[in-house]
Amino acid sequence: MDQKFRTSVERIRRDIDTLAKYSSVQSEGCTRFTYTKEFAEARDYIRSEMEKAGLAVREDAVGTVIGRMEGSDPDAPVIMTGSHFDTVKTGGKFDGMAGVTAALETARVLSEEGFKPRCSIEFVALPEEEGARFGSGLFASRAMCGQLTKEEIDNAVDEDGITLRQAMKAYGLDPDRVQEARRTPGSIRAFIELHIEQGPILEKEGTDVGIVDSIVGLRCRNYHVHGRSDHAGNTPMNMRADSLLAAMRAVTEAADKAVEIGENTVCTCGNLSVRPGAFNIVANETFFQLDCRSRLLSNVDRVFKVLHHSLDKSVRENPGLSYDWEDKLSARQVEMDEAIRGIMAEEARDAGLSTRHMLSGAGHDAMVMGSIADAAMVFVPSRGGRSHVPEEWTDYEDLQKGVELVYRTIRRLAAE
Amino acid sequence: MDQKFRTSVERIRRDIDTLAKYSSVQSEGCTRFTYTKEFAEARDYIRSEMEKAGLAVREDAVGTVIGRMEGSDPDAPVIMTGSHFDTVKTGGKFDGMAGVTAALETARVLSEEGFKPRCSIEFVALPEEEGARFGSGLFASRAMCGQLTKEEIDNAVDEDGITLRQAMKAYGLDPDRVQEARRTPGSIRAFIELHIEQGPILEKEGTDVGIVDSIVGLRCRNYHVHGRSDHAGNTPMNMRADSLLAAMRAVTEAADKAVEIGENTVCTCGNLSVRPGAFNIVANETFFQLDCRSRLLSNVDRVFKVLHHSLDKSVRENPGLSYDWEDKLSARQVEMDEAIRGIMAEEARDAGLSTRHMLSGAGHDAMVMGSIADAAMVFVPSRGGRSHVPEEWTDYEDLQKGVELVYRTIRRLAAE
Repeated sequence: MDQKFRTSVERIRRDIDTLAKYSSVQSEGCTRFTYTKEFAEARDYIRSEMEKAGLAVREDAVGTVIGRMEGSDPDAPVIMTGSHFDTVKTGGKFDGMAGVTAALETARVLSEEGFKPRCSIEFVALPEEEGARFGSGLFASRAMCGQLTKEEIDNAVDEDGITLRQAMKAYGLDPDRVQEARRTPGSIRAFIELHIEQGPILEKEGTDVGIVDSIVGLRCRNYHVHGRSDHAGNTPMNMRADSLLAAMRAVTEAADKAVEIGENTVCTCGNLSVRPGAFNIVANETFFQLDCRSRLLSNVDRVFKVLHHSLDKSVRENPGLSYDWEDKLSARQVEMDEAIRGIMAEEARDAGLSTRHMLSGAGHDAMVMGSIADAAMVFVPSRGGRSHVPEEWTDYEDLQKGVELVYRTIRRLAAE
Repeated sequence: MDQKFRTSVERIRRDIDTLAKYSSVQSEGCTRFTYTKEFAEARDYIRSEMEKAGLAVREDAVGTVIGRMEGSDPDAPVIMTGSHFDTVKTGGKFDGMAGVTAALETARVLSEEGFKPRCSIEFVALPEEEGARFGSGLFASRAMCGQLTKEEIDNAVDEDGITLRQAMKAYGLDPDRVQEARRTPGSIRAFIELHIEQGPILEKEGTDVGIVDSIVGLRCRNYHVHGRSDHAGNTPMNMRADSLLAAMRAVTEAADKAVEIGENTVCTCGNLSVRPGAFNIVANETFFQLDCRSRLLSNVDRVFKVLHHSLDKSVRENPGLSYDWEDKLSARQVEMDEAIRGIMAEEARDAGLSTRHMLSGAGHDAMVMGSIADAAMVFVPSRGGRSHVPEEWTDYEDLQKGVELVYRTIRRLAAE
């Protein structure tokens, strides 16, 4: 298999395994929070590999590592590829790293080939995509797109009470200069990101790579249902204000609606807590979060409409019940660039790779970069669909297929 | 109002307020765990009031305070009335105490009247009905009915690691002699208990007292639903093993069934927890408790059948889901004695009290005593249906009406 590819599965394996060692927790998966000691060590490895591939390496104002291969046309907007190199707590070694490795290996192969691009290519490794340390997800891509605010910089703080400003300074960055990371709209032509699927579809179907059509529209909302804590034995069903039952009914109906709508609509209540939490007391307070995603944000809104309709009905029928909610997350769907998707499909066919169209149900830096550049994503299989856990896994041979597609796509785009 | 009654609302108020002071927590409601210092102080007050009413006072092998008014027929089985004097943590001052006060006030009035009963009357105050300290609910009534095992005595331990044996010894009791608390079947004719309703019905209807038809049959079960923690965005609905959604669907259907059955069937999920508990991860583990009660235990079983049917369907449709369960509590319904209920209804009418039949949705010592004696219960209104909280409240005038009915019923039964 390897022989027909230009990329090297051995180098890919070395990148992944080396980067996995830069972890604050050694026993369980990979934990590498942005701007920590381990993060700096990973940065050093990435810089060193970029330099070995002959790239001109710099870091931008938020610490994005950028290795540049200069193109022959100094006026042409750049092609960019890469992913993030921070992780969640006790996460895996592929989430983010797979795309960083794709960038490194693409640079190495192009360099070995003596490839001379028309437009410059920037190979990037981004900090703080997960937001696991400062809650500032997609930090570096938002910095590039001019979406960071001073408030966010001034207020972010980690679990140990270290502020983002302190952490940036300790890492050698100036928090007052983050706006300098902003890239001029039009200066980046395309952003290509390889990522693990984080879902079960590719593995289940035995498909080599996924070409992402779009990143889903999503909303996540926090709900507080307020009821009354009555005795479970002596309070008739029609005299209760059971906050948990109202929540359960509403979430169940919302989930049914998501299935009915189809179009990759998913609806998840993964976090729920009740008070006082005793078997024989009706729950007076129920908190839950509902996360809903779909190809179109309008589908998401239809699901929440059903949720609210059900909650409103419970409130009408059970005096003493009420609820309030707030938005936690909200994002419109982002289409990946159709022309690049077409090129990817052709290159995959030429390389003998099976592909399928798919949605990304998760946000990625490519989603943000889509606001200033043509964005495209390649997914590689995730064993059992698992991610953000130590067991997260992609076979190196499977990862190589995705890397090969990134390499071919970049080479083609940069030559155009 | 008071003038037409023999009982004294002032003495009732004094009993309730005095007993409420014997609490380990002074700021918030009443906390009086069995065999503690506060418990001994309450015991001393009860003994003293019984002695002032001319009763012969003793304590049985588990610490039940028994004040006896000797009857003229030494062979006649005794009439017993009272309730418990332990409380839950930061509970109210009426749960249990209302019935103890009813016993004290009845003894005082009968004594003042110079009443000479045919059969002896025992006025009782029982420990550890709540089980809040040792988890041994209905302890003293079970002791009277010979339902305590050596294992229970040997294994019970409180939150601070003090064993039941140690606590009994410190209180002056011999844990090896608990079997001596057992009363010979046939030696107790009737057990009459006044209790707060702990539900909203009497207050809502404006009814003076409830005459309990029966104590409900109940089951409480613990459920563990096992699923798989997938990414909330990238896992299609039909590829999930969502433990929380399966639990929600099943509980909702069970609650609907309870309403459909009627017959005072109630179904409560008051305790539920999920893991890992993140908004964007499908819950792989859901624990919940389902408490179901009804006039007939067979109705309870119909509700659990619907619950299991729903869970089984989810398991069939979602590979990766499974569940297991265990019984936490189980009790058949207990009928209150029909003849005594008839007497109570007559006496209430004569006293000008409005009554209604009702079920008790909670277990009480009267439920256990029903296994060796004719049992009957009087309920008095609970404000807002609330109990086991500092706000638990019954107006003293409302309590007096119930006490008056207990007094009249005891006097009539003891004269027969």
